[in-house]
Amino acid sequence: MQIIHSIEALRQWCKTVGSVAFVPTMGNLHEGHLSLVQRAKQEAEHVVVSIFVNRLQFGQGEDFDKYPRTLEQDAAKLRDAGVTVLFAPDERELYPNVSQQYQVEPPHLQNELCGAFRPNHFRGVATVVTKLFNIVQADVACFGKKDYQQLAIIQGMVADLNMPIRIVPVDTGRADDGLALSSRNQYLSADERVEAPRLYQQLTWIADEIRAGNQAYSELENAAKDVLISYGWQVDYVEIREASSLHVARLGDKKLVVLAAARLGSTRLIDNLEIELV
Amino acid sequence: MQIIHSIEALRQWCKTVGSVAFVPTMGNLHEGHLSLVQRAKQEAEHVVVSIFVNRLQFGQGEDFDKYPRTLEQDAAKLRDAGVTVLFAPDERELYPNVSQQYQVEPPHLQNELCGAFRPNHFRGVATVVTKLFNIVQADVACFGKKDYQQLAIIQGMVADLNMPIRIVPVDTGRADDGLALSSRNQYLSADERVEAPRLYQQLTWIADEIRAGNQAYSELENAAKDVLISYGWQVDYVEIREASSLHVARLGDKKLVVLAAARLGSTRLIDNLEIELV
Repeated sequence: MQIIHSIEALRQWCKTVGSVAFVPTMGNLHEGHLSLVQRAKQEAEHVVVSIFVNRLQFGQGEDFDKYPRTLEQDAAKLRDAGVTVLFAPDERELYPNVSQQYQVEPPHLQNELCGAFRPNHFRGVATVVTKLFNIVQADVACFGKKDYQQLAIIQGMVADLNMPIRIVPVDTGRADDGLALSSRNQYLSADERVEAPRLYQQLTWIADEIRAGNQAYSELENAAKDVLISYGWQVDYVEIREASSLHVARLGDKKLVVLAAARLGSTRLIDNLEIELV
Repeated sequence: MQIIHSIEALRQWCKTVGSVAFVPTMGNLHEGHLSLVQRAKQEAEHVVVSIFVNRLQFGQGEDFDKYPRTLEQDAAKLRDAGVTVLFAPDERELYPNVSQQYQVEPPHLQNELCGAFRPNHFRGVATVVTKLFNIVQADVACFGKKDYQQLAIIQGMVADLNMPIRIVPVDTGRADDGLALSSRNQYLSADERVEAPRLYQQLTWIADEIRAGNQAYSELENAAKDVLISYGWQVDYVEIREASSLHVARLGDKKLVVLAAARLGSTRLIDNLEIELV
């Protein structure tokens, strides 16, 4: 595996190879990321993984400075996983003018769900992903469904700006007790880790209710929130949405997704579950 | 020359060929456009010209509806000029969702100079050019210096978003009396056409003064405006700026550009002139 730090060197490498699948990450890799890599290997001859902690998508008071930088361990995992190139630019390489002047501006969806709690987050994601797409020029890019709203925004952006890349959504990796794999799980105390799977359990409960014919979406959302709150969670949202547009779900929508974000102590966890009605 | 109307067909064609130089236009082609084509031919094996009247960059009360659509004559000119592909998508092809959801947002420069008189114009330009770049995937794109602010914004966007394309600026074509070639010149009455070269003459006068050591930039701007007004022009702006950043020019800047926009009757003309100091 090659480790490349400069845009110019990466562009040169790209010119010499066949098909490329791309997995953008912020590093601190876990099994969830590696399942993206495994999927990427099925999609193209070469896999490029980027590791870049993108200041642009962190808000004030968020964890940019303490975000774990673990390049050496990450590189070892990627090497073992059969990745061809690890692209690890530093900040001066991606933001040579310190501030990014031109932004990719997503539509109103960027201010809903997680966006309501993280101003400018999705603009920062859309902008850095555009930059990385332009640099790597891959045929395919893999994104996890764990970050469902991010995936929807990237898919919308690629379609709407005619980007020459195919987006492959990859299912969320989970621990045996259902907890979605996330870099943030490492911040949970032992007690919090025991409590954490309740988020997924509540999504599963909503999905079961809807599949059984319950159409009282607001009541389901509120019931799940109340359960979480009673177990000590601070709930940002639990929402039932139409799966591809992420519009508020209406009766008659066949493909739904329940999305939730809630904090246990100081750790913010997100998760979601797709529901297909027949 | 092939005429291609669909994005998919254009992408397929692009995969089969060598280097491509791209000239985006809104059609109604004149000698100025053809000089872009001639330059493009020097830059790559194939030249792709797009013709698309981009609703997104027209403001309220601007001339979107009456903008001349002259595809047949344009195609004949491009064929004679040795263009390989004319890409002429319709609105449904480029804006299938009617409204464009994801926009490329330029920095504050978009609200200065022409941007102060045309709200959202440069966002619309940046967005459609991004779409066209993503569709054509050319190696090089040629833009005229006539639209100097547009060129600066495209160059900034390409650098800042790491777009894999090289921008080639092309000098402004002029009539014998100095008037910059423009689609809008056809709207001038015979009397206005006689008066029109005064815009370029005033830019030339400012450039001569500055080269001769005159450092009173504001006075020069105002003097040129007064002359134009006294000959019946309505002046949007005459401004001396630093040539690459388009920041307001300061003493000590070596590369300058004087930019002007003014109306003769209902026709808005723009022009500019670069000044290099030693």
